[in-house]
Amino acid sequence: MRKHNFSPGPATLPQEVFQQAADALVDFNHSGLSIAEISHRAPEFVQVIEEATSLVRELYQLPDYFEVLWLPGGASTQLAVAPMNLLGLNDSMAIVDTGFWALRSIDAARELAQVHVLESASATHYDRIPKAWNLPADAKYLHVVSNETIEGIQYHEYPQVDIPLVADMTSDFLSKPLDVDRFGIIFASAQKNFGIAGITCVLVNTKVLPVNSDRKVPTIWDYQTHIQNQSLYYTVPTYPVYVALLMLRWIKAQGGLREMQNQSVAKSSLLYDEIDRNPLFEGIAVKEDRSVLNACFRAISPEVESQFLEYCSQNDVVGIKGFPTVGGFRASMYNGMAMESVQHLVQLMKNFKPSL
Amino acid sequence: MRKHNFSPGPATLPQEVFQQAADALVDFNHSGLSIAEISHRAPEFVQVIEEATSLVRELYQLPDYFEVLWLPGGASTQLAVAPMNLLGLNDSMAIVDTGFWALRSIDAARELAQVHVLESASATHYDRIPKAWNLPADAKYLHVVSNETIEGIQYHEYPQVDIPLVADMTSDFLSKPLDVDRFGIIFASAQKNFGIAGITCVLVNTKVLPVNSDRKVPTIWDYQTHIQNQSLYYTVPTYPVYVALLMLRWIKAQGGLREMQNQSVAKSSLLYDEIDRNPLFEGIAVKEDRSVLNACFRAISPEVESQFLEYCSQNDVVGIKGFPTVGGFRASMYNGMAMESVQHLVQLMKNFKPSL
Repeated sequence: MRKHNFSPGPATLPQEVFQQAADALVDFNHSGLSIAEISHRAPEFVQVIEEATSLVRELYQLPDYFEVLWLPGGASTQLAVAPMNLLGLNDSMAIVDTGFWALRSIDAARELAQVHVLESASATHYDRIPKAWNLPADAKYLHVVSNETIEGIQYHEYPQVDIPLVADMTSDFLSKPLDVDRFGIIFASAQKNFGIAGITCVLVNTKVLPVNSDRKVPTIWDYQTHIQNQSLYYTVPTYPVYVALLMLRWIKAQGGLREMQNQSVAKSSLLYDEIDRNPLFEGIAVKEDRSVLNACFRAISPEVESQFLEYCSQNDVVGIKGFPTVGGFRASMYNGMAMESVQHLVQLMKNFKPSL
Repeated sequence: MRKHNFSPGPATLPQEVFQQAADALVDFNHSGLSIAEISHRAPEFVQVIEEATSLVRELYQLPDYFEVLWLPGGASTQLAVAPMNLLGLNDSMAIVDTGFWALRSIDAARELAQVHVLESASATHYDRIPKAWNLPADAKYLHVVSNETIEGIQYHEYPQVDIPLVADMTSDFLSKPLDVDRFGIIFASAQKNFGIAGITCVLVNTKVLPVNSDRKVPTIWDYQTHIQNQSLYYTVPTYPVYVALLMLRWIKAQGGLREMQNQSVAKSSLLYDEIDRNPLFEGIAVKEDRSVLNACFRAISPEVESQFLEYCSQNDVVGIKGFPTVGGFRASMYNGMAMESVQHLVQLMKNFKPSL
């Protein structure tokens, strides 16, 4: 019996994807080989990574001057790699402090360049996206965390600025269509919306890469290295790429990014409607900035909270406890989350009778 | 029907390990969850990584002052990360040029520090390990590539020096017992001897970490970050760690590192004996430095070579073509390679009748 897993990431994938991935681990396409024992340079694997790349290009309708890279290290590594590649030694970038991942981005970028923190949502405990701020003239790009996984807030409209956006999109990559031309770099770890932990998809708008930088980027972290080698400069994590391919095929078969967005909105609306209706619960973020991927909410008292957690646990719901800094509950509903699981959770909220 | 896969990496693992890994991808320990959808901070996964760590400690009998890290990025990333962590801005390290991976190490280290190349085997096309050289007094450590995967040469005795060794052990990690006290850092990608691509095991001798360095190592690449966070500073590639755990359990059940060494020697001796006996083939490396993991050999003519490749392909042997710079054949026989596969290959060599 499958659990209903609302974990924030690594997160659930459709059962059929896990099953296909498991089958290929034992015998890939009746080849007598596991997909994981095939060389990253063998034609069979090169086909896998090329198909994954072309599906990302197709789903996002990427222009030719965008490159798709498959790299290890997660979005956390890109928080250092992106400034290294985009900023000279005396350059600066700008960022809005939207929460946990914005703070990580600020810390990582400050080790490498000047950082302008334009505004912070800390005064309201990161329950909203700050929208009123001034961009300094010297900022080379604006870093945005498109969705703050921990606080459950999301940009539904990206800031209108004249410089490129660099986006950590780990928690909403491939969850809706995008006007990619406004972005310089987009990166996302796979383990939320399109795979398992171990691979990062990086979209590089080659128009924003500096031609002459006074910073010497080590070869292993230079985007040019991986563009020139089509992500095969070193052994790419082959199996995580394969699982990403299976998810990309699944996303396309579902109907692409517009359909992913429809499903995200449908799932999260069902849950937020119950949060707003049910007098035992309340949402944490302001409504206009609520994330459609991570719904953060709390119960009317700590006592009711622990009773509901226990009730969830008895009824096959896992991964719903909120992050310690926020508390309460967090229900993560990425691409791989079935509507049936959200319906199950909402039914539990309706049925739940705390003993007060 | 399983193929006999002699690929240099990603490489074959025991069928039972692939099967266990596939089962856990669909349903981990009858939990109703895939191992890949469990949070890296959940107790179920923390148990996985802690067991993997303690098995590495046990197999290598690591002293307390060694830390075991699980990091993304492969050994190639460590070629930059190790010098960043160990060397100040004006420090130098030494290295012997033993082949492809030594050259990569030299290039990566030169971007960060002074590199003394002590000796090179290039004049003899990297068919041997240079053993006569002088160590400069200012070298902080000696980098060694314990086994050169591409050229098929291996250190059977490590150099006797008074400074720590830093070893890229990707192709012979966990393949024999080791006197770890002579090493400062040991790192290895998993996809040869103990798992699938996507995770790197790094052993850090904390005695060699500099206390005050004038180099500011970015947090994400600072060994101290990952020591303090027990490899969970960011989302570790959970599934590759799980597969590594299965391989570590398998290695222990086989009898540990002494038994891995016995098996490696038995497999490679069987093959080298046939290479030396059979007038159609000849070994490439000098005998005393031959790798027990990667046997490089060629046929007496290009014509015979392509006929034998074809014969292998018709008889379920794959991954045996040599690297372009070396040519000929390369049979890789890591921990996961069954003796039966080597016996099968040797029998093919005996049966092979080229049409001349």
